[in-house]
Amino acid sequence: MSATALLAIDWGTSAARAYRVDADGAILAERSAPLGIQQVRDGDFGAALAALLGDWAALRAPRIACGMIGSRQGWVEAPYVDCPADLDALAGGLAHVPGRKLAIVPGVACRDGVGIPDVMRGEETQILGALGAGPRSALAVLPGTHSKWVRVGAGRIETFATFMTGELYAVLLAHSILGRMAGVPAGEGTPGDAFARGLLRGLEAGALAHDLFGARTLALAGGLAPADVPDWLSGLLIGREVRDARIWAAANGGEASRAWVIGNDALAARYARALGDAGIVADTAPAGAAARGLWAVARKAGLVASTGG
Amino acid sequence: MSATALLAIDWGTSAARAYRVDADGAILAERSAPLGIQQVRDGDFGAALAALLGDWAALRAPRIACGMIGSRQGWVEAPYVDCPADLDALAGGLAHVPGRKLAIVPGVACRDGVGIPDVMRGEETQILGALGAGPRSALAVLPGTHSKWVRVGAGRIETFATFMTGELYAVLLAHSILGRMAGVPAGEGTPGDAFARGLLRGLEAGALAHDLFGARTLALAGGLAPADVPDWLSGLLIGREVRDARIWAAANGGEASRAWVIGNDALAARYARALGDAGIVADTAPAGAAARGLWAVARKAGLVASTGG
Repeated sequence: MSATALLAIDWGTSAARAYRVDADGAILAERSAPLGIQQVRDGDFGAALAALLGDWAALRAPRIACGMIGSRQGWVEAPYVDCPADLDALAGGLAHVPGRKLAIVPGVACRDGVGIPDVMRGEETQILGALGAGPRSALAVLPGTHSKWVRVGAGRIETFATFMTGELYAVLLAHSILGRMAGVPAGEGTPGDAFARGLLRGLEAGALAHDLFGARTLALAGGLAPADVPDWLSGLLIGREVRDARIWAAANGGEASRAWVIGNDALAARYARALGDAGIVADTAPAGAAARGLWAVARKAGLVASTGG
Repeated sequence: MSATALLAIDWGTSAARAYRVDADGAILAERSAPLGIQQVRDGDFGAALAALLGDWAALRAPRIACGMIGSRQGWVEAPYVDCPADLDALAGGLAHVPGRKLAIVPGVACRDGVGIPDVMRGEETQILGALGAGPRSALAVLPGTHSKWVRVGAGRIETFATFMTGELYAVLLAHSILGRMAGVPAGEGTPGDAFARGLLRGLEAGALAHDLFGARTLALAGGLAPADVPDWLSGLLIGREVRDARIWAAANGGEASRAWVIGNDALAARYARALGDAGIVADTAPAGAAARGLWAVARKAGLVASTGG
């Protein structure tokens, strides 16, 4: 029934995910492969794209991608557009792989109060996709290795801030003294009491470089089982991020009593829990944010004809 | 002329340093070896001690050590004594290797405002040694992998706080995205302008998990040379530690307008610079703090006879 109007690809550092999207923006099917830009051999992105698409490669639909594929280390660099950035800005900044093989959405850049830049690639598309059918103004968080907190106003990305929470968690467990007595990293399951305890600590004022050491001293003193160190650390880091992001959000547009969580995995559930404990209402965005955002950019750019309205 | 009255050993995780000390506490000679407890094979600490001492092993002087040699992973565990801790408490908590081979100074433990423990091993001896001839009350910092900020009052360690600054610096440069575009880690030389810029950022209020990302975005945007990333990161982390420690110190005994820096290396010089930029007077402790502290504990314990006074 529905024909494929767009091939939309969320192409990141470690993985790539392709979607067949119809003319109304509905997702018809999706495929993924461990073909993030770090996994692509000899810069042969064409071969990687063919492998990802499989028989979809024969479809005549236009192709669009977001994420690290547009970085300096990707296929074709799509230079950052500055905040405030809306769909028009993303559509206007599309980079094109020669031969109409692929259009690539630019990342977005901003500067904080003291002039230090911040950047995102991929999240700009997710957030505009996630909020496309929702409020035109919102605070949103995209949990991950480098979490992004984003202030959206009137359908534009006004400003944002990156928190290296996920990477701190990973490198501290794998390479610091905190991991030496710890159990396996927190997994997909429901976090337990140790997560709640870490969260409580994180949501309070404190010095992060000091508070982190609590994961070791609590374990040394018998106040935390070694197997629970990862969950406590996860709680501390996510809690502190939420605390600090609320201060950031209040200084960047005011209202921070509710926030959208863009993501549908176990990590997003941890963030929703942290927001709740902080007294912030968590709205969970529906799945497929990147595909919907890519469709919205493609339509703005005239790659996909509007079916009406 | 002066006879050896004590063999004093600062025995840490990665290195060990031995001192010959006379009856007045003067250091006659010192030796070091890469025989920290992590380097000792098969738990044969006796062989490691013999290797470290060399011909000093024939001396009949008593032997005393501080540091990780007294931890659960060391030779004989010397359980932590609680704050407030003075020389009497350290002398009373000495653990002894059977056969009078070695007395080991206990570490010190405290709990912060929310009941999370903190611990030190080795620093308690350094600080009481460093301040032995100085003020009976002071704020002190011992820079390192795990920096310690210590409040000393009336010759006792009242309370302290650990900051994982050095370890964060090392693991982020070696294992995170921040190191991927960075030059070699900051070395022994005089830090340059990038250190000052990072310091300025660190001394301001901010969210550490966000501010760290500046090391990447500044480099991406051309605002920081890759070779300068380590110095900027060093400045950010040390500056934030000083900022947070001042808040901690103010909540734990008040006055924080001056601080002793216990250490004599390039790192201590960076801390002295950071204190100065923060408007805190930095007093630099004379070298040999551990040896003097070990001598003071040994004298308290009656291992070394007092020569008078």
